[in-house]
Amino acid sequence: MTSEFDLIRRHFARPAAASGRARLGIGDDAALLRAPAGAELAVTTDTLLEGTHFLRGTHPGRLGHKALAVNLSDLAAMGAVPRYALLALTLPKADTRWLTAFSEGFFRLARRYGVELVGGDTTRGPLSITVTAIGEVPAGKALRRDGAQAGDDIWVTGTLGDAAMGLAALQGHIRLTGRARQHCVECLEMPQPRVVVGRALRGVASAAIDLSDGLLADLGHLCERSKLTAEVWLDCVPRPDEISACRTTAVARHMLLAGGDDYELAFTAPPRMRAKVERAGFGNGVMVTRVGTLKRGSARVRVYEGSTLVRMPRGGYDHFR
Amino acid sequence: MTSEFDLIRRHFARPAAASGRARLGIGDDAALLRAPAGAELAVTTDTLLEGTHFLRGTHPGRLGHKALAVNLSDLAAMGAVPRYALLALTLPKADTRWLTAFSEGFFRLARRYGVELVGGDTTRGPLSITVTAIGEVPAGKALRRDGAQAGDDIWVTGTLGDAAMGLAALQGHIRLTGRARQHCVECLEMPQPRVVVGRALRGVASAAIDLSDGLLADLGHLCERSKLTAEVWLDCVPRPDEISACRTTAVARHMLLAGGDDYELAFTAPPRMRAKVERAGFGNGVMVTRVGTLKRGSARVRVYEGSTLVRMPRGGYDHFR
Repeated sequence: MTSEFDLIRRHFARPAAASGRARLGIGDDAALLRAPAGAELAVTTDTLLEGTHFLRGTHPGRLGHKALAVNLSDLAAMGAVPRYALLALTLPKADTRWLTAFSEGFFRLARRYGVELVGGDTTRGPLSITVTAIGEVPAGKALRRDGAQAGDDIWVTGTLGDAAMGLAALQGHIRLTGRARQHCVECLEMPQPRVVVGRALRGVASAAIDLSDGLLADLGHLCERSKLTAEVWLDCVPRPDEISACRTTAVARHMLLAGGDDYELAFTAPPRMRAKVERAGFGNGVMVTRVGTLKRGSARVRVYEGSTLVRMPRGGYDHFR
Repeated sequence: MTSEFDLIRRHFARPAAASGRARLGIGDDAALLRAPAGAELAVTTDTLLEGTHFLRGTHPGRLGHKALAVNLSDLAAMGAVPRYALLALTLPKADTRWLTAFSEGFFRLARRYGVELVGGDTTRGPLSITVTAIGEVPAGKALRRDGAQAGDDIWVTGTLGDAAMGLAALQGHIRLTGRARQHCVECLEMPQPRVVVGRALRGVASAAIDLSDGLLADLGHLCERSKLTAEVWLDCVPRPDEISACRTTAVARHMLLAGGDDYELAFTAPPRMRAKVERAGFGNGVMVTRVGTLKRGSARVRVYEGSTLVRMPRGGYDHFR
């Protein structure tokens, strides 16, 4: 058996890159960081637990990616540039192959966005990964949930429902094969955090949130914080071609609006910003789609198909329901 | 059943205190923090897992305390003043009584040190608590593990072995009753992070580490980082009266040097700092004891009883051994 300290050192205490910004990284009681003058730090933490957030047997490289990605997605939704991460890893055993693959997935994504791993903790137990991510954003420029105004457009990045369909396919609830299956499973297991778009939306979007629990639930949080009602036009919500694999309209709607695990951004912006929103998205290779508008009213989400109000079950993934 | 969001809101989204420093706390994708000019942020994360770090049935109020305390202890070892915490909580069920007690324990300690809970995540699963704590320290003034010099004294705060004896008593390995048992179990379940002493040691201590795995193992880390050898005088290591409950010398030594869960500080300082060290400790109501000295040599810990070298099994608690 390898010792805990050897294990951590070998897989995670990589030599600080030339660009290492932390004053002190792994190997002390705490990491030491500096925030540049005029910057705020955005800090977020998210857990991935086997059986709840990912299926048993998921490739460890993809887990390493996703554990970091879901946190970078939160930073993206703030318009923050990711800088640092801490990794609290609970593992049933010290399996070198598993750790090698996991850390490769983690560090590949970390390198892409210049994220430095500055601390962590390793425990023996049921597989669970908690990442804390820290980013920087110029003071006062963060995209918050509470900045939306009545009359603002509602936008989303990418397409919705892909990851939920990937999960449904893996669980045998829907039938997907070949490249369609591969695409949806990859969306589930390798979400691409919208870091570049989030940053480009500073000064353009009025509010933003990342989509982890599905558009209905997460837009609901934004509405609640901004004290507004969202009107969403179902026909406009961008969906993958694979959605046709859903046998009923109800299933397709669920995937699209409440499936979760999208890790796209939903955001709001005044209509005069439309050209800038499109530049922030398409200019960075990411589709952005206008899916609704904000109205005065009591913090809810209404979905319309044409002019008809669609009845939706309260959506979103809730761990304690 | 309560919804996840209601649950979090009710127990953890307390209104920011008048002293709330965070620009944005719970309720958005990430918290927003500012570091004061000239300050560095110290960041650390630690997991407590049921069955590994605490016994099943431990009072939730004590768990709330300890989950934060072990992280504040890391900040104390850096000489950092705690400011913020994030809480990733995995719970088998949404039990209101459990959550009420847990959050009371957590917030009681948080209030004592002015710590603001600024974010978190809640998941359903085997009981596990990961806290990330963030503190502030003037730039360049943090106590690191790598600052010790040959000739420096080695000091510890408090007494060692109390918590390990508490655990051994709960597990039936040693017999402790009445107030002795109560004292040791309280040291195990309610460790008092040495925040005030850590801060007072800035500019006095040359290096510091917090004792979570036992003096031998943790001093070993300090020696490794400082590239020195520690000579520890067994007779000087401060121990509780309760140590007499250990039936053999070997057991007593294990409790004292390798039992773990002490959450005291071990630190080093040049001999000319002795008066200042004592003021930093006793002046803040915490005993400090000189237990050894640092020598040139290859990063190890040697324990002496009188002038005799004591053979010790490699100590410390290692999750993967």
